[in-house]
Amino acid sequence: MLKINENYLKLPGSYLFSTIAKKVKEFSEMNPDKKIIRLGIGDVTLPLAPAIITALHDAVDEMAKKETFKGYSPDLGYEFLRQTIIEHDYNSRGVTLALDEVFISDGAKSDSGNIQEIFDVNCKIAVCDPVYPVYVDSNVMAGRTGEYLTDAGRWTNVIYMPCKKENNFAPELPEDTPDLIYLCFPNNPTGATITKSELQKWVDYANNAGAVIIYDAAYEAYISEEDVPHTIYECENAKSCAIEIRSFSKNAGFTGTRLGYTVIPKELKVGDVMLNSLWARRHGTKFNGAPYIIQAAGAAVYSEEGKRQTGEQIAYYMNNARVIREGLQSAGFSVSGGVNAPYIWLETPKGMTSWEFFDYLLLNANVVGTPGSGFGPSGEGYFRLTAFGTLENTIEAINRIKQL
Amino acid sequence: MLKINENYLKLPGSYLFSTIAKKVKEFSEMNPDKKIIRLGIGDVTLPLAPAIITALHDAVDEMAKKETFKGYSPDLGYEFLRQTIIEHDYNSRGVTLALDEVFISDGAKSDSGNIQEIFDVNCKIAVCDPVYPVYVDSNVMAGRTGEYLTDAGRWTNVIYMPCKKENNFAPELPEDTPDLIYLCFPNNPTGATITKSELQKWVDYANNAGAVIIYDAAYEAYISEEDVPHTIYECENAKSCAIEIRSFSKNAGFTGTRLGYTVIPKELKVGDVMLNSLWARRHGTKFNGAPYIIQAAGAAVYSEEGKRQTGEQIAYYMNNARVIREGLQSAGFSVSGGVNAPYIWLETPKGMTSWEFFDYLLLNANVVGTPGSGFGPSGEGYFRLTAFGTLENTIEAINRIKQL
Repeated sequence: MLKINENYLKLPGSYLFSTIAKKVKEFSEMNPDKKIIRLGIGDVTLPLAPAIITALHDAVDEMAKKETFKGYSPDLGYEFLRQTIIEHDYNSRGVTLALDEVFISDGAKSDSGNIQEIFDVNCKIAVCDPVYPVYVDSNVMAGRTGEYLTDAGRWTNVIYMPCKKENNFAPELPEDTPDLIYLCFPNNPTGATITKSELQKWVDYANNAGAVIIYDAAYEAYISEEDVPHTIYECENAKSCAIEIRSFSKNAGFTGTRLGYTVIPKELKVGDVMLNSLWARRHGTKFNGAPYIIQAAGAAVYSEEGKRQTGEQIAYYMNNARVIREGLQSAGFSVSGGVNAPYIWLETPKGMTSWEFFDYLLLNANVVGTPGSGFGPSGEGYFRLTAFGTLENTIEAINRIKQL
Repeated sequence: MLKINENYLKLPGSYLFSTIAKKVKEFSEMNPDKKIIRLGIGDVTLPLAPAIITALHDAVDEMAKKETFKGYSPDLGYEFLRQTIIEHDYNSRGVTLALDEVFISDGAKSDSGNIQEIFDVNCKIAVCDPVYPVYVDSNVMAGRTGEYLTDAGRWTNVIYMPCKKENNFAPELPEDTPDLIYLCFPNNPTGATITKSELQKWVDYANNAGAVIIYDAAYEAYISEEDVPHTIYECENAKSCAIEIRSFSKNAGFTGTRLGYTVIPKELKVGDVMLNSLWARRHGTKFNGAPYIIQAAGAAVYSEEGKRQTGEQIAYYMNNARVIREGLQSAGFSVSGGVNAPYIWLETPKGMTSWEFFDYLLLNANVVGTPGSGFGPSGEGYFRLTAFGTLENTIEAINRIKQL
């Protein structure tokens, strides 16, 4: 008899950002005169940089002519893009990669949601807590996470690695040995990073334990401090234990343009099997490549002009981050993040829960943020603000919060 | 201990089209003077229509300005596109759909590969034989198909529904009751269709059996004959048993531009659970939408100019189909398809296997086609040629084959 994938029904409520959107919509409809400032979802607001726009127009023109029209993309993505990525994101940091170790995709969300598929259903996952919800949710759908304990807000078969003020928002090596370790640095939502020597401990741990690290570096472009690794492959022997996921969403404003990539070194094996081959097979079977014109735009991000222009955008957002961080600090909030990431992470005041503070802020300051508890049980009592608004709105939002 | 998804290792060899590409590359390197004509992969060759190009440029310009820049797409895709699809592809055929019954995606390959995820791992699938390999391969990866019998070229736990000359390439209702029935009409690779009354039998069968039909109508635009349904929802009560998958690849040349959609009516339930909700959850968790500029281009396909221009492209390809069909018939081949689909399906001559004929054709006519056996065991002894080449190449290829 036909049955559905019952794991889907275990997921509590809807995706975090859908819930926020619903609450904001309701408030907005009841208060049409209030100007709501959204510092909730991590969505960029600056338009695509001129160098990217030019590349898009050029690529569209190529699609208009028989001689330059492009049909199906190569399975792993166009070589011109993979080569450019390797040179700029890896060779420049002393890391060598082969062309077929880079897989172009439509974004880090798809890749971080799909990557679990190539592993056994009984693998045990470990996640930073709090963290981007897709890692856990995609494993719930696959049936790896056990049961959900509603009151605790946690799954029975997930290893949570608390990242709280007490440990400077850096996860500690878990007591139970996981099979898959999701690390996200700079971290979404806390904005925290770890140093290269700290990351090396994780690499050594994974190599010893026979675990695989899934390293999400979507916010790499926001790193401003020395000694924070830009790629996990800066660490020794990372190629034998780590998959790295990258995105064009936050460094180049591609949230609505969709492009990302995943690196799986051929050294990374489980027994005799290269994970690179499994992912290649998935790509070949269930995906048909990112659009040619988007891949062409992705290459333009690495041009001299593209780097300069996107660098200016990142600086704009990071100035917002400074405004938020310093403003909240001066108002007496306990704040972290915002230095190597566009996210500011604050403790909710007066013992409010994350969702209580969400409602409080929406009602009294008409500012939308993201409840920390939506990112995991250790996010309770915290709150995320993002630096992706306009400078004017950001200043106004912080002034409103100061006046509360 | 870390284990991989062992189901991946069950997949025999590589994806059909990768194997073909490899063989062609080897031949080409050994015979650099030969002009190879590719009528193998179903990839379009005409450039994007002018109306689509204009829409792409306009959308790129929107991404360049702060006021019109688009970040994350709505989970299900932009309403302007979903509304247009409903009006043109459904309302025009007497079918009503709600906006949230249409899910925009990056293509039919992703959707037809991913859709199995929302069903239980023990569901039994039935497929037309031969058919597009993604349906079976994606279920192999999920562990639904049992073991592969190499000599027979079949999986122990898949219900194959033979489509051969003897039954006019139309599948018959299976003896074993399946849970999921993949139907693809116009069929890839045979080019066969079934009438509305025949399709109604499948709908009635599925409703009685409690099965779900996954209806892939990627080639709908090529239907030329009356009484061939353009959507399964033309049949009575199809909404309670059928999911429909559509593509922009073949009607508008989007193979390298990537856009598709899937319809899941809210009437379609398993027990109390709407499959629509499960798919919405998957979309929200593992996908971040097709690029805005591509969705804008998709809407342009339905404009008056877009319809006229893409209609001319389809007519061009269908003239190629006629050239292939009539040419092969006059050369004594037994041929079908090419009337409601851009695929011509022929019996291999002199008892050659499909791959023997592939090698024979590549060696002696320097023409690349697709071995029928790559689409399923009942494809053995057949061969697919596609109408997506240029008219000149198509004529030359057929002349070469005639001279063999």
